[in-house]
Amino acid sequence: MKRSLFTALLLVILLPFSTVAQDSSRTVAERLGYPRDAKLVIIHADDLGMAHSVNAATIKAFETGLVNSGSIMVPCPWLSEIATYARANPQADLGLHLTLTSEWTSFRWGPVSPTDRVTSLLDKDGYFHLTETEAAAHADPKEVELEIIAQIERAKALGIQPTHLDSHMGTLYQNKALFEVFLRVARNYKLPVRVAKSWFARADFLPAILKADDVYIDRVLDINPAVAAGDWSRFYSEALKNLEPGVTEIVIHLANDDAEMRGATFNHPDWGAAWRQRDFDFFTSETFRKLLQDNQIKLITWREIGKLSHR
Amino acid sequence: MKRSLFTALLLVILLPFSTVAQDSSRTVAERLGYPRDAKLVIIHADDLGMAHSVNAATIKAFETGLVNSGSIMVPCPWLSEIATYARANPQADLGLHLTLTSEWTSFRWGPVSPTDRVTSLLDKDGYFHLTETEAAAHADPKEVELEIIAQIERAKALGIQPTHLDSHMGTLYQNKALFEVFLRVARNYKLPVRVAKSWFARADFLPAILKADDVYIDRVLDINPAVAAGDWSRFYSEALKNLEPGVTEIVIHLANDDAEMRGATFNHPDWGAAWRQRDFDFFTSETFRKLLQDNQIKLITWREIGKLSHR
Repeated sequence: MKRSLFTALLLVILLPFSTVAQDSSRTVAERLGYPRDAKLVIIHADDLGMAHSVNAATIKAFETGLVNSGSIMVPCPWLSEIATYARANPQADLGLHLTLTSEWTSFRWGPVSPTDRVTSLLDKDGYFHLTETEAAAHADPKEVELEIIAQIERAKALGIQPTHLDSHMGTLYQNKALFEVFLRVARNYKLPVRVAKSWFARADFLPAILKADDVYIDRVLDINPAVAAGDWSRFYSEALKNLEPGVTEIVIHLANDDAEMRGATFNHPDWGAAWRQRDFDFFTSETFRKLLQDNQIKLITWREIGKLSHR
Repeated sequence: MKRSLFTALLLVILLPFSTVAQDSSRTVAERLGYPRDAKLVIIHADDLGMAHSVNAATIKAFETGLVNSGSIMVPCPWLSEIATYARANPQADLGLHLTLTSEWTSFRWGPVSPTDRVTSLLDKDGYFHLTETEAAAHADPKEVELEIIAQIERAKALGIQPTHLDSHMGTLYQNKALFEVFLRVARNYKLPVRVAKSWFARADFLPAILKADDVYIDRVLDINPAVAAGDWSRFYSEALKNLEPGVTEIVIHLANDDAEMRGATFNHPDWGAAWRQRDFDFFTSETFRKLLQDNQIKLITWREIGKLSHR
């Protein structure tokens, strides 16, 4: 009893200082309570809700504890399945993968908002555009705002309490107008967004728009089509061995290499069925677990980062 | 030259009579040019476009020639895949499986028309209702008309030339107001509709609404949950052996018993993944081919029936 009273008093005294102390002169790692040289990593699986194969593989990966974050595509057909998981696992670090593209030619989706109010987001067939470039070229920022708010509201109505926001295929980072909409909506919902300091050189509008209370991480790391299938494990292993201190999000794409994923990605091996199986195999492996240990890498989540932002 | 001139003249003389001769005093079998006692069957696979598994299994079944007709769900995510097949196979007997329900709890879809114009068709989550009963209880017939026209127009825009129309889960047969809308739209598009004389006893509004030029078939035959999995082949075999003359549509549901279908139907074995695999196995089997031969059953299509209707 005495001890908990003491703790309570100490909190009352220290809390105002700790709040003030979350200023931008300290690194995100430090603000999260870690040493400046800590290697903090989020292992983040994109595209939840897209397909049963993606949901099944990602949930299985979550159960290993090695993949610890993910984001959900609200307009996609398997949203209900992942919403059921989210409601049953409220501690899971699940964000929304705000979606303005529909990239597989055999398997498509479109807006959550009434289609006649977001016509700039539609291709000739009435779905989202196939690529982020087309989407950004046509998108009216007002319609983007309407649609991404509709996606957040639908997720919340289904019982998903998102811990963060990011953007499928990076559409919302394609230009300043889209990123402004994205950040405004995120601030209103008090949610952190995937933004990395390592992107500032190639998109100088990013630091110009960010304010002091917009938390950004140090870097996003993802594999790319230049890596041969046989080099998958080596690519990730080298990346982990050479990881710099700070907060890194490793963005991965999980699915089973099965009929459904092959059907969706049949003409697009990049980010295709076999690609996603390779990601699953590496990030649920003992090799990966050992790399985390050997390199003193600590897994953190967007939920922790969210506590620093827009407060 | 003389011979073709003679044929042309004969056609000019006979054509008006043959048109007049397509009256309702003759059976549909006779009007199609078959004897009155012919056993004519359409083997019809429902739910195309719903899932990759459904598309893949049905296309494989079409290739055997034993399954010769199907209908497409326009609001579903795999529409593009089956539209590609339809464009490449313009002779295929493909209709539209007009869709106003979204029955799998993990995997869902909604209207083609702007959602705010068809609110009576939506459940609380913004998808179509789960059951045909709920759909019919809430549906505003004007919104149903808007939506089914939108489905037909989207199909046509994707290069599908439907040969017939039917209704997913029978929603459009649930009451007179819905069936009137269905028939009016079908007449405007000059397309035949799945209606069977054998239904008249349980839905007396059907014959009351049908006009002389609305062609209807004799019966629809489908398997039901009362049949045990082990009795699948016996059920269909008996049905084929005891088939009465006239036009029968055997409505089946094909898919592979794979991860995607199991994910969609996990809590609903009726019309589920294993059910659809059993249908696939029977209707692509040599047993089935032999039953058609032994019982003098001839396969016909909706394309033929369409030539008799709304002309």
